Amino acid sequence: MARYTSMEFIRFLLFDTHRVDTLFKYERFAHLDAEQTWMILESAKLLADQEMFPYFKILDEHPATYDGKGAVKTHPQLKKIIQSAAAQSWIGGAAKFEHGGMQLPEMIFNTGQSIFQSANNSVQGYIGLSTGSADLITSFGNQEQIETYVPPIYEGRWQGTMALTEPQAGSSLSDIITSAKATEKGYYFVKGQKIFISGGQHEAVDNFVHLTLARIEGAPAGVKGISLFIIPKYTLEADGTMRYNDVHCAGDFQKMGQRGYATTHLSFGDNDDCRAFLVGEPHKGLSYMFQMMNGARISVGQCAAAVAMAAYQASLQYCLERPQGRLVSEKDPSKPPTLIINHADVQRMLLTQKSIAEASLSLAMECNKLYDQVHGTEGEEKDNNLLLLELLTPIVKTYASEQGSRSASLAIQTLGGYGFTTDFPVQQLYRDLKIMSLYEGTTGIQSMDLLGRKVVLQNGKAVKLLILSITNTMQEASAYEQLIPYAKKLGQELQRMSKVLEHLSGYAVKGDLERYLSDATVFMEMAGHIVIAWQWLKMSVVAAKKISQSDFQSNNQSFYEGKIHTMEFFFKYELPHAEACATTLEDQHTLTSIKNFELFN
Amino acid sequence: MARYTSMEFIRFLLFDTHRVDTLFKYERFAHLDAEQTWMILESAKLLADQEMFPYFKILDEHPATYDGKGAVKTHPQLKKIIQSAAAQSWIGGAAKFEHGGMQLPEMIFNTGQSIFQSANNSVQGYIGLSTGSADLITSFGNQEQIETYVPPIYEGRWQGTMALTEPQAGSSLSDIITSAKATEKGYYFVKGQKIFISGGQHEAVDNFVHLTLARIEGAPAGVKGISLFIIPKYTLEADGTMRYNDVHCAGDFQKMGQRGYATTHLSFGDNDDCRAFLVGEPHKGLSYMFQMMNGARISVGQCAAAVAMAAYQASLQYCLERPQGRLVSEKDPSKPPTLIINHADVQRMLLTQKSIAEASLSLAMECNKLYDQVHGTEGEEKDNNLLLLELLTPIVKTYASEQGSRSASLAIQTLGGYGFTTDFPVQQLYRDLKIMSLYEGTTGIQSMDLLGRKVVLQNGKAVKLLILSITNTMQEASAYEQLIPYAKKLGQELQRMSKVLEHLSGYAVKGDLERYLSDATVFMEMAGHIVIAWQWLKMSVVAAKKISQSDFQSNNQSFYEGKIHTMEFFFKYELPHAEACATTLEDQHTLTSIKNFELFN
Repeated sequence: MARYTSMEFIRFLLFDTHRVDTLFKYERFAHLDAEQTWMILESAKLLADQEMFPYFKILDEHPATYDGKGAVKTHPQLKKIIQSAAAQSWIGGAAKFEHGGMQLPEMIFNTGQSIFQSANNSVQGYIGLSTGSADLITSFGNQEQIETYVPPIYEGRWQGTMALTEPQAGSSLSDIITSAKATEKGYYFVKGQKIFISGGQHEAVDNFVHLTLARIEGAPAGVKGISLFIIPKYTLEADGTMRYNDVHCAGDFQKMGQRGYATTHLSFGDNDDCRAFLVGEPHKGLSYMFQMMNGARISVGQCAAAVAMAAYQASLQYCLERPQGRLVSEKDPSKPPTLIINHADVQRMLLTQKSIAEASLSLAMECNKLYDQVHGTEGEEKDNNLLLLELLTPIVKTYASEQGSRSASLAIQTLGGYGFTTDFPVQQLYRDLKIMSLYEGTTGIQSMDLLGRKVVLQNGKAVKLLILSITNTMQEASAYEQLIPYAKKLGQELQRMSKVLEHLSGYAVKGDLERYLSDATVFMEMAGHIVIAWQWLKMSVVAAKKISQSDFQSNNQSFYEGKIHTMEFFFKYELPHAEACATTLEDQHTLTSIKNFELFN
Repeated sequence: MARYTSMEFIRFLLFDTHRVDTLFKYERFAHLDAEQTWMILESAKLLADQEMFPYFKILDEHPATYDGKGAVKTHPQLKKIIQSAAAQSWIGGAAKFEHGGMQLPEMIFNTGQSIFQSANNSVQGYIGLSTGSADLITSFGNQEQIETYVPPIYEGRWQGTMALTEPQAGSSLSDIITSAKATEKGYYFVKGQKIFISGGQHEAVDNFVHLTLARIEGAPAGVKGISLFIIPKYTLEADGTMRYNDVHCAGDFQKMGQRGYATTHLSFGDNDDCRAFLVGEPHKGLSYMFQMMNGARISVGQCAAAVAMAAYQASLQYCLERPQGRLVSEKDPSKPPTLIINHADVQRMLLTQKSIAEASLSLAMECNKLYDQVHGTEGEEKDNNLLLLELLTPIVKTYASEQGSRSASLAIQTLGGYGFTTDFPVQQLYRDLKIMSLYEGTTGIQSMDLLGRKVVLQNGKAVKLLILSITNTMQEASAYEQLIPYAKKLGQELQRMSKVLEHLSGYAVKGDLERYLSDATVFMEMAGHIVIAWQWLKMSVVAAKKISQSDFQSNNQSFYEGKIHTMEFFFKYELPHAEACATTLEDQHTLTSIKNFELFN
């Protein structure tokens, strides 16, 4: 079978780099050990091998399609996948025992998801959405809501979704107008249109649970007037029957990628009979939704990384098998051609991909571990974990999606013309990946979040915590001679970042927030490169330690040397672009806020 | 109608920036004047508006498809387009009067093609291939070959193609094995397989003329044993009948983009009855083919620029119409939303696209003008024009295709989730664009060509000529105060490039060609940024001059100010990445030539 991920690398990340074993001291995870954890992930790999990966291309060729009446036709395999995933706890596995879960750390649960994302990113979407929806209900719903909706979602019988976007509002949630009217019966009547609802209708489940943002009549304008509702497609009545709840799928969106993942337009209350159940308190919907959204952002970043990883593996396999051309030093045409992996430029393209995909997966795992630590610690430690997680969330989402696209483009490039044909998976991975910079807040939105909210949290404490974490890694690296120059280099980049932030904050202090934020995306690019360099140094410390151990088995040596080598590659080829971003950011010339649009002609 | 290009910008490039009028002094073009030239281009725009652009999406939805037997089904509109283009001289228009052409400069002819490329890049491919094939026959074929093949191609009745690639050889032309056996009748019998043959079979013409590289039996190994043949699908017999020439279409390639453009697998001589007609002398085929290939490389660069332009225009139109969100300085949710073009990050994305697409089109025009100058001048002047053209050819091909993909990705980004749906053209343009970095030599091949061949031509004379041209522009810019800092900055970049070349040549001098070339792609990225900065400065000089003229009409002012503004944008946001490339190139650490492939795991 073609390789789409590397279990050896996942093992290295989980046990050596990010030390999942440190979580087992928390009471919630005390029932786990390393061996058991690995068995769980091997079962995920088996499921992906058998039921997901073989359908990767097939689902692209048979996209989810609206039938014109309210149904969305999906491939029959989808039902099998959702049922198998549910049976093996890949929907509810991170939930507590009392909610039917296995109390897995997110770090392990999401690593399993990353295997699915590499194997078939469209189908993982359905599963991930259900998980997030059920978790949200568990966090903020009442007992009855939890009992009604969570079990069928975890069992794969019902699909959870998040219904936020409206046609007129797009990313601007303060402008949503879907309305909710209170009734004496406890529920609300909802009316409105939601678009881009992933998994909003398909053939693999019996019911849909739409977690929907709407505005209760008379609510304040803006985000402070948004409430969260559970809106099932069918309500479960007291007599056990299912009642159609006036939730109509009005259409779908055909897309350039993720074609197996249904993207729907939902219409609530066309016949004024759509019952919605308030979650938590009125007007607090957006703050609740952010639990799911933050998880989704990390998941999208991880998915982008996992797809880039699949593209890298396909690219590597091709380069190891394809003979073509000769080395610059050996041009004799009577000699047989060499494998293309011997060409310097092909090695550069492979290392670029590896440096992006592997470190992005590492950063996603860093985030998942922080999430587990937030839930396992108390007081200042908890606060610090949360702050750092909040800072890293937009970064992992953006770096992995933006650079992942570039990485998949290089995967195509290594295959030459073949890469552009549907005979090979790399072009599909490239198409699929493009959505990742749009999902759950575009790159522009993430960048505003980073610079406008996360950087300024508690007077910049999150940035200080990041610098502290990176400095710790630098100190560890200093124990290995080969790593010292890279630790120093990373220190210089941190200083540069601080200088840039100081420069930018000058605008904010003067009250010119528009200018402060205008190059947020460039700052994001710089921060992303630095954080990824950190992940590479972190992996290199582990690799250097392994190699230096006296009982080291030499048959693993090249795996670890490859980590250090890729770190060196990233520092030489990628990291200099962080400095280029700094040059742009420190340039005082203002080029935005154009009022005369004729300038664009 | 939606905008897909800007005639105002094309006029600015043609008449003001690149001064097409200077060509009219050559005898070959003495029959032309500016007004006539513009009428010709307006007729191209009309043709594109009426027959090409309306079928852009339709051809993607109804891709060229092999029928399993030898035919490739194409949309009926294709025949109409080829016939209309031929009738309006858009196949043979640049040819001499004696060959049925209009003796148009390439600069004008290819500007017309760029309009077609923006409107519908798949269909322009068929036209462009026919032009290149007929021109090649005219240059190197004998009188009989010219008379037999050129008129029906120019008339749009026959399709010309170029048949180079073979399954086992890919980019490595020295390894082609298609064989040619001489007969006493003057023709050869050819046998072999060619893949990725664009336009190799379809329903819009009566015959195909495949310009094919093959190896005459007993020829030397490598590129020195390759000959060029004309292989028609049907030969025209003395009695006027058409004889099937044993050229079989054995299959096609389905692709992620350019789906309207048939990509075929051709089999020559399955029944040992495929007659081929030698062009020019034996074993000189590759040198002849390079005429067509060089033209094709510029054309691919121009096409990438034209597609990026179409994506920019679609993106700009959307941003001017779509209200969403509020400015950072105006968060009151009771106020109506603003147009998204008012958001700083959207302006940044638009200016990035504009800075890439417009300057790439300008660079393509620079190349087309140099081509005309080569053919209009003599002696040293001719040699210099040719040298500079040879240096710029891989750069325009690579910069436009690599950065064009990034540009189209930003076009999707400005549309948010809508950009990923098939309801909007930007995703198709993004998919189409990805082939441009693969066609006619991948980015890796172009970069080796630039650093390994073009830079070292005549002891670096081509680079000196480039520096001279750029320095001239810098001097012109120095007359305008606003441009002085940018002229200086460009001078610094030129110095940096010279320093990098000096550093790299150290490896070459030591005989380590492998190391000299190993980062050729990074050098290409740097050179591309500098050359594009030059194009922006060049356009800005014209704009500054226009604005300073006393009789300047103020209603055009923002168009010209927009040029200077975009130049400033490019220098601030894009050019710093050239320095990042220099940092990588000057880093002495060697990371390539990996022999142990386990390092990639």
